[in-house]
Parts: sequence; C-alpha cells; structure tokens
Amino acid sequence: MGMSAEEVHAVKAFGWAAKDQSGLLSPFHFSRRDTGEEDVRFKILYCGICHTDLHRIKNEWGGSKYPLVPGHEIVGVVTEVGAKVQKFKVEDRVGVGCLVGACHSCDNCSNNLENYCPKKILTYNATYHDGTTTYGGYSDHMVANEHYLVRIPDNLPLDAAAPLLCAGITVYSPLKFFQLDKPGLHVGVVGLGGLGHVGVKFAKAFGAKVTVISTSPNKKEEAIERLGADSFLVSRDPDQMQAAMGTMDGILDTVSAVHPLLPLLGLLKSHGKLIMVGAPDKPLELPVFPLLMGRKMVAGSGIGGMKETQEMVDFAAKHDITADIEVIPIDYVNTAMERLAKADVRYRFVIDVANTLKAA
Amino acid sequence: MGMSAEEVHAVKAFGWAAKDQSGLLSPFHFSRRDTGEEDVRFKILYCGICHTDLHRIKNEWGGSKYPLVPGHEIVGVVTEVGAKVQKFKVEDRVGVGCLVGACHSCDNCSNNLENYCPKKILTYNATYHDGTTTYGGYSDHMVANEHYLVRIPDNLPLDAAAPLLCAGITVYSPLKFFQLDKPGLHVGVVGLGGLGHVGVKFAKAFGAKVTVISTSPNKKEEAIERLGADSFLVSRDPDQMQAAMGTMDGILDTVSAVHPLLPLLGLLKSHGKLIMVGAPDKPLELPVFPLLMGRKMVAGSGIGGMKETQEMVDFAAKHDITADIEVIPIDYVNTAMERLAKADVRYRFVIDVANTLKAA
Repeated sequence: MGMSAEEVHAVKAFGWAAKDQSGLLSPFHFSRRDTGEEDVRFKILYCGICHTDLHRIKNEWGGSKYPLVPGHEIVGVVTEVGAKVQKFKVEDRVGVGCLVGACHSCDNCSNNLENYCPKKILTYNATYHDGTTTYGGYSDHMVANEHYLVRIPDNLPLDAAAPLLCAGITVYSPLKFFQLDKPGLHVGVVGLGGLGHVGVKFAKAFGAKVTVISTSPNKKEEAIERLGADSFLVSRDPDQMQAAMGTMDGILDTVSAVHPLLPLLGLLKSHGKLIMVGAPDKPLELPVFPLLMGRKMVAGSGIGGMKETQEMVDFAAKHDITADIEVIPIDYVNTAMERLAKADVRYRFVIDVANTLKAA
Repeated sequence: MGMSAEEVHAVKAFGWAAKDQSGLLSPFHFSRRDTGEEDVRFKILYCGICHTDLHRIKNEWGGSKYPLVPGHEIVGVVTEVGAKVQKFKVEDRVGVGCLVGACHSCDNCSNNLENYCPKKILTYNATYHDGTTTYGGYSDHMVANEHYLVRIPDNLPLDAAAPLLCAGITVYSPLKFFQLDKPGLHVGVVGLGGLGHVGVKFAKAFGAKVTVISTSPNKKEEAIERLGADSFLVSRDPDQMQAAMGTMDGILDTVSAVHPLLPLLGLLKSHGKLIMVGAPDKPLELPVFPLLMGRKMVAGSGIGGMKETQEMVDFAAKHDITADIEVIPIDYVNTAMERLAKADVRYRFVIDVANTLKAA
C-alpha cells in the first residue's frame, strides 16, 4: 500500500510483533481503523498465549506475514461503540477470539458456523474486508464488528477467562456437536495442556466420567486433584491401556505432535468418537480395521461459531470454569514462548497487557 | 477334537476348501450339525465370492484355519426347520451373510447390531457356540439359527441377490447410519468393484446425486450408462479433482488397497463424512488439518445387523437392486480368485453351487 503499518488507519495502536520467522517479539507501532457503525473498540486488558501463536510467529504452518502481532484470546473493556451497535456499550467486559469476519452468506454462516466459512477472517495474520492486515491482541486496543465480540459475564475473572476464547471453544464445541455432553458418558482427554485442561473441566461440567490420557505419569496427581479428572491413563503403559480398552464413548485428542491413533481407537467402545482438536503438521497413521470393527470415527473440529462461543462463555460462568493460568508481563513474552515450546506451563500464559505494555 | 471334519457332526456335507495358504480350493468332505430347534437347514443354490474370501484363503489377514470353506453370500431354499422355528418354512427362499451367531446380551446385540458384538460368530473360519468350526457357502447346504437368515423376496433373482448379503449390507448400512440416505445429497463412491457398484445403486435409490471416483478412466462409461451414476471423477486427474473440491456430503470409500485420503477429504463439504468400508491391511495417512477446517470425519462401518440386513434386502427388492454378476461353475473358482485379485470381474463372481458342485 506504500504506507507503513502506522499510517494505514486513523487510530494509532501499539503492540508487540514478530518481525521475521525467528519469532522474536518486539515493540511495534501500527494503527487500527476508526470505530465503524457496527464496530466496538475496546482497551485490551489481557491476552492469552495460544500454541497457534507460537506456530505463527515462527511460520511453522507457512503463510505468516511480518510484522505479525499475534493473540486471539483477547479480553478488555469497551471504550467506544459505533452508531449501529446494539449489543454492547462503553465499559462492558468483552472478548474477541480467533475470528473477526466471515462472508455471512454461505451455508455455514447461515448456521452460525462462521468458523467453517471459507471466507472467515482470522484475528491476526489475515486480510480484512478493507484489504488491510489484521493484528491480534498482543497490543493496547482492539476494534471489531460487534458480531465478533462476546460478553464476559461479571463473575468470570478476565485474565483466566481470556483462554476460553480459543482453548475453551475449541474443546466445548466438539463435545456438544459430537454429543459427548450427555451425563454419564466416559470421555477421554488426550494431552493435558492449554486445550486439554479446559477440556477436562467442560467434560466434567457436562457430567462425564473423565479420563486423562497422557505420556507423563507425573501429571496424574494434578489431573485428578486439581482438575477433577476421574482417572488417569499413562499412554505408554500397555497394561493400563489394555485394561481400559473399549471403555470410552469419546476421546478429545488435543495433541498437536504426531502420535499413534491405534491405542486411542482401542480405548473407544463401538460407535466411539475420536475427536482431533490439535493440529499435527504431518499426517497421522490411521489403521482402518478398528474403524470398521466398531463403526468408530475420527473427526476434527476447529474453534466454534460466535453464537456458540457466547454460549460457551455463559456456560463457563455458570459452572465457574476458567483456565489455569500464569500471568506474565509483556516483556516476558519471548521467554514464555520458549517455555511453551517445552510445554512448561500450567496451563496457559496470559499477558497482563494493560499493566505492562507501554509504548517506549 | 480327534475327529475328522466329516465325523464331528451328524450330517454329511460337501464343499470346496482351501487346505493351506496357497489358497487353492479343492473338494472337501465335512459335516454340519443336526437341525436344532431354532435352526433352519437349506440347500445352497448360489454363493457369491467376496474379496474377503480371497484374503482368508491366503491367510492375508492372519488367523486362517485350514481346511477353510469360504463363502458368506449364501442363498438357497429351505429343506428343514427346527421345532421352534417361527419365521421360515420348507421351500422358503433364504440367505445367510457374514454372521451366524452373537452373544445376544451386549448393548450392540440389544440394538440389533450383532455385527458389532464382540462375540459375533462369522459364517466361516470361526468357532461356533458348540466349539466346532464354521464353514461357509462354497458347499452343498447350510444350517443356521433362524435369527441369522434373511428372507429373499420373490422378485429378486437368487444368483444376483446373493452378493447383497455381504456387499449390499456393507454399503447400505453406512449410507443409512451416517444419514447419507437423504434425497438431494451428493455422494461419492470410491472404487467400482463388488462393493462400489452396489453402493452406486443404493445411493441412487436413496435419491442422491452419485459421483464415482476411480483411478480408471475406462470405467466412466459403465459407471454412468450401466450403473446410473451421475458423474465420474478420475482420481489421478488433478484438474477434475480440483473442480470437484468441497462438493460432496459424503463419500463411501470401498478401496481395500492403501490409498491417499487427502484428495477425498478435499472433495467433501464442511461436515462431510468419509466412510471407509474397504479394509486396507496397512494404516492410511490421515492429514488432520482438513478434518479441523471443516469438522469432517473419517469413519468405518462393517456389514450390518440382521434386522437391517432384512430391511436392506427388502429395500433392494422394492427398488430392483441386485449385483451385476458373472455366474461360474465351482471348478472355475480358482481361476475366479486369480481374476478377482486383478479386479477382473464386473462386478461379482457368483458360484452356481446347485448345478455344479458334485461330490466325486
């Protein structure tokens, strides 16, 4: 466009951006659009660090455009609303997740599934309707069409609620859609990270018996004591896995590394459902016989639509579900990324944006 | 047991068996049990040759026990019924498919899904309740509990109806269960063999737009002219595949060789279902991103329960659906197996048992 990021729009903004695929984040001056008629502008208080942010800043999935301001677990307080905004007013507690736009005319959009719209616009590293680049929540403020905001109920702490906007909806939506939200079902959760730990909480709130499946025996105590899981399986222990064969109605697989599916399919009852919400960058090995023998399925699910995201946040408020978080200052973000790469966080980093992000 | 197969039971039987994993079939004298109170005995008229038979005679899946009499697409005419038999009488036209027993107490059995019972008893190469080996339909007669027989409606020719008992139910059941039986859907069928050609017919009868997906361009004309498919995709033609991306509600994948799933997942709309009914003996590569991006699923399905098998045969009778067959004499069976291995049959061999199987 021939303009710097700071000159594209009318309103100055400040955040931290990755400048290249080293992924190193550093201060970045840019701009955001004026508050349009249907737009809500809000001061960002907290932003969660999703594993996707790590992939994106290092261009591990390809397609990263620099400078790249990550962050799609964004919460804050409304500072300005456009003339036609109906749902929000100044001082409301709000959040934006992974989406800021979609076509609003396709079948998926018509069914409140903007997340599956082929023209959905992601919160960062995407191109908005006006042709400009979207920037995420590692920044001082946000502006978005009101359709893409959710209201954060008063009883949810904003910092620990932030991760609900991606991690929360990512696990809530498939539990609902694949009918694993019925009381009395036995639901497995593979991987106890940002997604998995929230998955345990939602599955328990739905009334399931929840078994955490992990490679790390040392996560057993916290899975049960702290997160409320009913049992724990060490996936590398053949005896434990054998004993649990054919016992689960569904499994939420949050692991984004390449891993074997055969043992997980074995844990399922017939008609059981293995739901992938992690995103391994290489294909997994799918043995077909176990699918045939029990009419089992392997399915995927990606975040959720805006209607369901609000429903999820309201459900979380009702059941006191938030993420377990470690709040960090913005200048710790590069260290946090290193720790996240080693899964060294219980379970989500959240940046204290309002108190620590200062323009130099 | 210390007895020869001919001495185990009271009633002499004769068929062709594989004697070792060469898979070569030859005459075999054995025996079948007396007609029990709930049993039906019938003279076998025709038996289809399923690809499973080829795997089993050569022990390609492991676990084959010799001598092995294959055949689970068995039709004939009742000759004797036990005292408590309620549904059948002498001279009825009947069939037996892949199953001759199950536990009748598990959840699956309670739901008329004997096919997913962990204790299901297959029609051949299995151990029956009485501890004896089950033998299939490449033989002069059959005896089975009446629960495992289906009635063949009068308007269905017995020879061309035989393959419905395995191939037919294998494709009918998933089209129903995964809700691909609604008029107006776009259903893909991968592979135009014994399963695929019947799949096209059932999908058309359900009111779907049917696209055959095949590696062989030379199958296009018969797919459309002879089987009634609406369109044809050459899976090796990237332009054709690209043009069809995102257009299908479901795909029935009948291919039992290892093959790529990524292009098939691409053909599906969001929420589309890829249903595996073939049984590749090695794992397939499953790319996870396409599942996440469209909430797609890969599922498996194996034959069907007895209630649904009868329903399928009745549906086939109503819609004049049978298999396209090549009727062969029993002494052609080894040649037929060689041709089947090369997919050189349009589309199912059926053995004319009654007219060609003679004890020496």
